[in-house]
Amino acid sequence: MSGARTLIIVRHGQSTGNAAGEFTGTRDVPLTMLGREQARAAGRHLSERGLRPDAVFCSTRSRTRESADMILEAIGLPRQNVVEAAELDERDYGALTGLTHQAAEARWGADQVAIWRRSFAAAPPDGESLRDTLARVAPCYITRILPAAMRGIALVVAHGNSLRALVAAIEGLSPDAIEAVELSTGSVRLYRLAADTTIEACDIPT
Amino acid sequence: MSGARTLIIVRHGQSTGNAAGEFTGTRDVPLTMLGREQARAAGRHLSERGLRPDAVFCSTRSRTRESADMILEAIGLPRQNVVEAAELDERDYGALTGLTHQAAEARWGADQVAIWRRSFAAAPPDGESLRDTLARVAPCYITRILPAAMRGIALVVAHGNSLRALVAAIEGLSPDAIEAVELSTGSVRLYRLAADTTIEACDIPT
Repeated sequence: MSGARTLIIVRHGQSTGNAAGEFTGTRDVPLTMLGREQARAAGRHLSERGLRPDAVFCSTRSRTRESADMILEAIGLPRQNVVEAAELDERDYGALTGLTHQAAEARWGADQVAIWRRSFAAAPPDGESLRDTLARVAPCYITRILPAAMRGIALVVAHGNSLRALVAAIEGLSPDAIEAVELSTGSVRLYRLAADTTIEACDIPT
Repeated sequence: MSGARTLIIVRHGQSTGNAAGEFTGTRDVPLTMLGREQARAAGRHLSERGLRPDAVFCSTRSRTRESADMILEAIGLPRQNVVEAAELDERDYGALTGLTHQAAEARWGADQVAIWRRSFAAAPPDGESLRDTLARVAPCYITRILPAAMRGIALVVAHGNSLRALVAAIEGLSPDAIEAVELSTGSVRLYRLAADTTIEACDIPT
C-alpha cells in the first residue's frame, strides 16, 4: 500500500481514569492492562496494512506516549522521534477533573453534565470547551501535522476530545455533527489526502 | 511570476464603522470613499505583480464583498465565483457592537476594553473571543481555503480580527504574538506555500 499523504489518528488505550469512569482531562494517569493491549492491537492493525509512520505526534500526557510507544513496538519501529505537543493534550475539564461522571452528575445534575460533555461551545467551570480545544489543535494540525502527512505517513496519538476537535477541523463538521463523533479507546482513523490536502478517502476500521 | 500555491489575504477597505471608530463586528456597513480606494489599490498591487486569483473567498458582510469586487475589477477579472463564507465573518463583539471605542471605555473602563480588543481568550459580554473566532476560521482554512491555495492562487478578503485569527492559525502564533498582529484596512499579505503546505515565503508589502 502506498505510503503517500496519509494521516492516521489513534486514541490512546484505556487509562485508569477511563476505567474508573472519571473526567480525566489534564490528569496524568497510566494505561490499564486492557489499554496496553488496545494500543498493541492498533499497532498490529497498522503493521498488517503495511503502514509505517514517518512522523509520530502525541500529547504531553503519558497515556498517549505509552500508547505511541506500543504502536511503534508492534510495527517494529524505534521509539525515538515521537514529538510531544501540548496542543494535543486532552480538553481541560476544569472543576470536573478527577470526578466520576456520577459524582459530577450528583453535584451539577445529569443535564448540565451532558451539556459540558457533548456541546461544542459550553465549558465547565474553569475548564475548556471543545471549541477552545479546537482552537489550539487546529493550528498544530496546520503547522506541524498536515505538513508531515503531506510528506509521508503521519501518526497522531491523542485523546478522546482533542481528537474529536481534530476530526471536526479536518472534516469541517458542524457543531451538531461533532457532538455525534465518538472515538473509543485504541480506535484508529485513517485519512488519505490528495495533493491539494483534501480528503481522498477516510477509513474507520470497526 | 508563478501562480502556484499562493494565498493572498486582504483586509477590506475602510468602512463607515472604521471611520467612526466603532466596534463594527457583525454589523453590515458600507465602505467609505477611502475604503473603496484602498480596495482598488490592493487590486492594482496584485495586478502589477501578475497575481490573478483562481479562487476568491469573502465573508457574508458587504464590506468584504464590495472590496473583493473592486480588487477583481482592478485586476480585470469577472466578479462571479466569489465564495461567501460565514466562517470568515468578523468577530462578534457582543455588547460592544455599534459602540465607539470611547463609549465602550466610558462604560467598562479603558483597561477592560483593551483586554477585550487584544487578548486571545477574553470575550466581551455576549460576544466572541479571538480564540472563538479562530475556532471557526481554521476549519474553513483547512477544508476550503488551503485546498484552493494548493491548486493555484487563492484570495481571502475578510476582517481585521477574522484575518488575525487566520494568520495566527497559519503561522502557529502564540497568544502573545497574535496580540501584536495588526492588519490595516486594505492591507495585503501574501504567502507562498510548499508542496507540503508549509510557508515558503511570506510577503507583507508596506
